[in-house]
Amino acid sequence: MASDDTRSAEDRLIAELFAPLAMHPGALGLTDDAAFLTPGPGTDLVLTTDAVVAGVHFFPADDAHDIAKKALRVNFSDIAAKGATPRGFLVSLAIAPDTDVDWLRGFADGLRADSEMYNCPLLGGDTDRTPGPLAISVFMVGSVPNGAMVRRAGAKPRDRIFVTGTIGDASLGLQSRKGATWRLDHTQRDHLLSRYLLPRPRTVLADAIRTHASAAMDVSDGLVGDLAKLCRVSGIGGIVEVARVPLSDAARAVIAVDPAMRDLALTGGDDYEILCTVPPDRAASFRAAAQTAGVDVTEIGEVASGEGARFVDEAGRVLTFKQASFSHF
Amino acid sequence: MASDDTRSAEDRLIAELFAPLAMHPGALGLTDDAAFLTPGPGTDLVLTTDAVVAGVHFFPADDAHDIAKKALRVNFSDIAAKGATPRGFLVSLAIAPDTDVDWLRGFADGLRADSEMYNCPLLGGDTDRTPGPLAISVFMVGSVPNGAMVRRAGAKPRDRIFVTGTIGDASLGLQSRKGATWRLDHTQRDHLLSRYLLPRPRTVLADAIRTHASAAMDVSDGLVGDLAKLCRVSGIGGIVEVARVPLSDAARAVIAVDPAMRDLALTGGDDYEILCTVPPDRAASFRAAAQTAGVDVTEIGEVASGEGARFVDEAGRVLTFKQASFSHF
Repeated sequence: MASDDTRSAEDRLIAELFAPLAMHPGALGLTDDAAFLTPGPGTDLVLTTDAVVAGVHFFPADDAHDIAKKALRVNFSDIAAKGATPRGFLVSLAIAPDTDVDWLRGFADGLRADSEMYNCPLLGGDTDRTPGPLAISVFMVGSVPNGAMVRRAGAKPRDRIFVTGTIGDASLGLQSRKGATWRLDHTQRDHLLSRYLLPRPRTVLADAIRTHASAAMDVSDGLVGDLAKLCRVSGIGGIVEVARVPLSDAARAVIAVDPAMRDLALTGGDDYEILCTVPPDRAASFRAAAQTAGVDVTEIGEVASGEGARFVDEAGRVLTFKQASFSHF
Repeated sequence: MASDDTRSAEDRLIAELFAPLAMHPGALGLTDDAAFLTPGPGTDLVLTTDAVVAGVHFFPADDAHDIAKKALRVNFSDIAAKGATPRGFLVSLAIAPDTDVDWLRGFADGLRADSEMYNCPLLGGDTDRTPGPLAISVFMVGSVPNGAMVRRAGAKPRDRIFVTGTIGDASLGLQSRKGATWRLDHTQRDHLLSRYLLPRPRTVLADAIRTHASAAMDVSDGLVGDLAKLCRVSGIGGIVEVARVPLSDAARAVIAVDPAMRDLALTGGDDYEILCTVPPDRAASFRAAAQTAGVDVTEIGEVASGEGARFVDEAGRVLTFKQASFSHF
């Protein structure tokens, strides 16, 4: 029996498409049952997993290249929010009956592009056939100095509440994708669509978060619900002035046409921005570090004693939301 | 807004069912975006992932408790084959439309039982709805002393080839599950069925493998195909005497009725035994260590120069197999 004859179709495809992305020595060229990683001395590993499923988290007809990037970036976003540096990832890929080799090539190409851009090698994985929709689970490993992972717990009364970038673009982009037009121009529409299609994880802000933030998380399930989670775990309350929540020009244009879309922007999810709290005496330094990193940060409110996250309008009224937190579940 | 009102159904269910399994301090009670793990000094992390999909790797009507255990055990098996100690796991769970809370309770209960038995805490996870079949991806982290992970590469000519336990029971169990009877008695049939339903990962042999083996892997895709993989990566050949491959009484009874089932036993997969090579001067020590650990090991052949894994019968003829390696792909 010639050795090549014993290789399954899976092995051959993996070798061809994915092994070139596994440049880390511990990945062993994807020829082993497992990978190894040697953490530096004084290092904690930061571990996270997030999955994306066709028809749930992305449109099945989306480009395979973009789907690969989305699958990685939702994990880069978690790692960044913890103040960590990505070190490597594993992929568990469930391949649907209609997934062909061209799709897999595009997918591997998207993984490669982001693996290089974020300097985070493929360490291993698993591929299986599924009769159901294509699904991609990414398991990502990051590192921080011992004890330095930034948690959701840790916010203290009087800490300032910050978010990066703009909020709501992705959830409005999904509505646009589904047909909403809101009389937007092409640039505005493209902005919202691209924010839904491809997260822009704030990896370059990780050091600033680790240095200055008392608590942090990424905004994946909507600002309102995610701030409520941070408040609950930190055992504190929070007050956000809705008028200060950063919105893109496109999101402002949508809300001007349909004011109800403001709530969707605040609760709709898929932002992949970072929400963090910073002690008052660190706020200026955090702003400066963010500026150096090239990331817009906006102070939207303040941590308070008590519990619950309150969003107040210009008149000081506390807003209520039909659905506080977005959930696929 | 009361804080509890902001919790999604997902958060409440996760808190109720899974948080009690996340006893490791780095799991943060599953209330964060990520977990952290502090490796001991001089430690390498060993990382692996394996997924199971309903209708592909298990029968959808199987008990949720057993499905949870299978999902974990295929990963424990990889960790053990690398000579590593399990340290923790993350679960990415894609929940099908017909998955109910009772199923999730049973699943969490199965995870808890094995998490305790193998001393390996839940560190984190992700749950999503899928329109397709239920799927479970487990990401497992183990540890070994620096540089000590046992690889598939490393076998040298004259090394002895060993396997643990018995080979072929699970693949015959699957046939039995599908209706094959082979005039087996109840005990024989139950043995095969239980080997298919629940892997018995050889975690207690990890130290012996790390101490004595030159190369190792778990047998998940069939002995013939998996040995071929080990030979290819090690750059050597192997000769196995088929008569020495350890078979259970039940498997022998099947083959007595239907001799063609021998090939299925050798190529069929789902064994979750360990295949390893041991230098000749270490073979006796390895046997002794295995005996101390309470694991049966059998020498089935020898590493040779050249390439390819040859299986020879009593007459010295090289066997050929219709399908050398089992693959779900």
